Amino acid sequence: METVAGMRVLLTNDDGIHAPGLYALYLEIKKLGEAAIVAPEFERSAVGHAITTVDPLRVSEVRKDGELYGLAVSGTPADCVKIAIKSLLPRRPDLLISGINQGPNTGMNVIYSGTVSAATEATMLGIPAFAISLDSFTSREFGYAAEFAGRLAQSVIRKGLPAGTLLNVNVPALPGEKVRRVEVTRQGMARFTEEFHRRVDPRGRAYWWLGGELMETDEEEGTDGAALKDGAVSVTPIHYDMTDYANLDMIREWKLTK
Amino acid sequence: METVAGMRVLLTNDDGIHAPGLYALYLEIKKLGEAAIVAPEFERSAVGHAITTVDPLRVSEVRKDGELYGLAVSGTPADCVKIAIKSLLPRRPDLLISGINQGPNTGMNVIYSGTVSAATEATMLGIPAFAISLDSFTSREFGYAAEFAGRLAQSVIRKGLPAGTLLNVNVPALPGEKVRRVEVTRQGMARFTEEFHRRVDPRGRAYWWLGGELMETDEEEGTDGAALKDGAVSVTPIHYDMTDYANLDMIREWKLTK
Repeated sequence: METVAGMRVLLTNDDGIHAPGLYALYLEIKKLGEAAIVAPEFERSAVGHAITTVDPLRVSEVRKDGELYGLAVSGTPADCVKIAIKSLLPRRPDLLISGINQGPNTGMNVIYSGTVSAATEATMLGIPAFAISLDSFTSREFGYAAEFAGRLAQSVIRKGLPAGTLLNVNVPALPGEKVRRVEVTRQGMARFTEEFHRRVDPRGRAYWWLGGELMETDEEEGTDGAALKDGAVSVTPIHYDMTDYANLDMIREWKLTK
Repeated sequence: METVAGMRVLLTNDDGIHAPGLYALYLEIKKLGEAAIVAPEFERSAVGHAITTVDPLRVSEVRKDGELYGLAVSGTPADCVKIAIKSLLPRRPDLLISGINQGPNTGMNVIYSGTVSAATEATMLGIPAFAISLDSFTSREFGYAAEFAGRLAQSVIRKGLPAGTLLNVNVPALPGEKVRRVEVTRQGMARFTEEFHRRVDPRGRAYWWLGGELMETDEEEGTDGAALKDGAVSVTPIHYDMTDYANLDMIREWKLTK
């Protein structure tokens, strides 16, 4: 496959500009063209599709090995994409990639994902986009995921995506030769089991802290979670139209009156 | 229609516990049963489906006219629903209502909505839920919207909602007699036009602030925005499965390889 020449790619994430997953992605995308990083100054996980409206945003340059690496923004992943495209970049990018996230973004958890929301924001602004996550909260083996991102970037630019559609990609934390296949999947039911821990501070006042771990779910075949478990890369096309079309007629039958 | 006796309703919002829209809703729901308020301590608009994981949450009692009015949480609307159901309420509520929001939540803007995310969170926890918003950023005429919420609450409890489905309700800012009808709709394309204003602070450093106003869009018939414009209440069933089923096969034809 011939390389797409000179693509301009915007990179962001929700683990913050200093995250190793973003750096692995950056090194790979630089081989293919321009890679501009505009990312949160620190970790902004589980911010969902938050945007900052009440406060202003600050932007600062981040250097690596003496060279400009990217721009750090005092906001959320969605803020980064919005301000990059509307104010910071000299030209519109051809593609936005969000990641590589440390930990999976599958099933019901997608709704909390800052990683995915960055890609959604780009899509809403008319820029093709995908989010990519590594299925491990600890592994630093981003190599295969970065390579896959590079090849998927070229596919997306060549083939295009329908308006309003983005891709949510999850990659097993395995060396490339152990990855079994790529599967186009639907969103499954994976979620965290969450409980609040009630504690008391040194001044005797209560506070609550959310704990949680990924629940073992028996995912149906064809879902993102089942593919990952089977050692496959999952690619889920998602969109931001949340209408539950299957139940429109059922609700109409309620015959709600004013 | 006979009143459903003794329903237990959890109320929240994203405009904060002191918002007049929440108070109007509270007065109406109290006529039908128990109304427990667990809401953000201050405005948390445009937070999307953010949840607070890095910091702990504080909870404090808010009193009105000498009586307990509700619990204020130092978090997002989704945090409020999660902590209410998991830790604060003695029993699971029969229903969650989020609102009455000051300003519409229609079209593409739904993805940014803290109001809707609270209802989504309840649905994910197995509690029937709806979000309700007034189509005005300034009108304080919440009376009709509150009445409609009371009647819809009874319909939802009587008829139930499918697992995973919630309702996103938008109400025209009109007196009840001027409201034309109730329409079951799909999510339209309404969105804000957004630009960043670049300014310089007193110490000479740049900052950016997001401005924006609701764009006039020619909404297609059948959408939430078109119904509102025509003086109708819009009721949109939504779900949190973001899979773009219509494009699964198209992406499969890309024949992505590992």
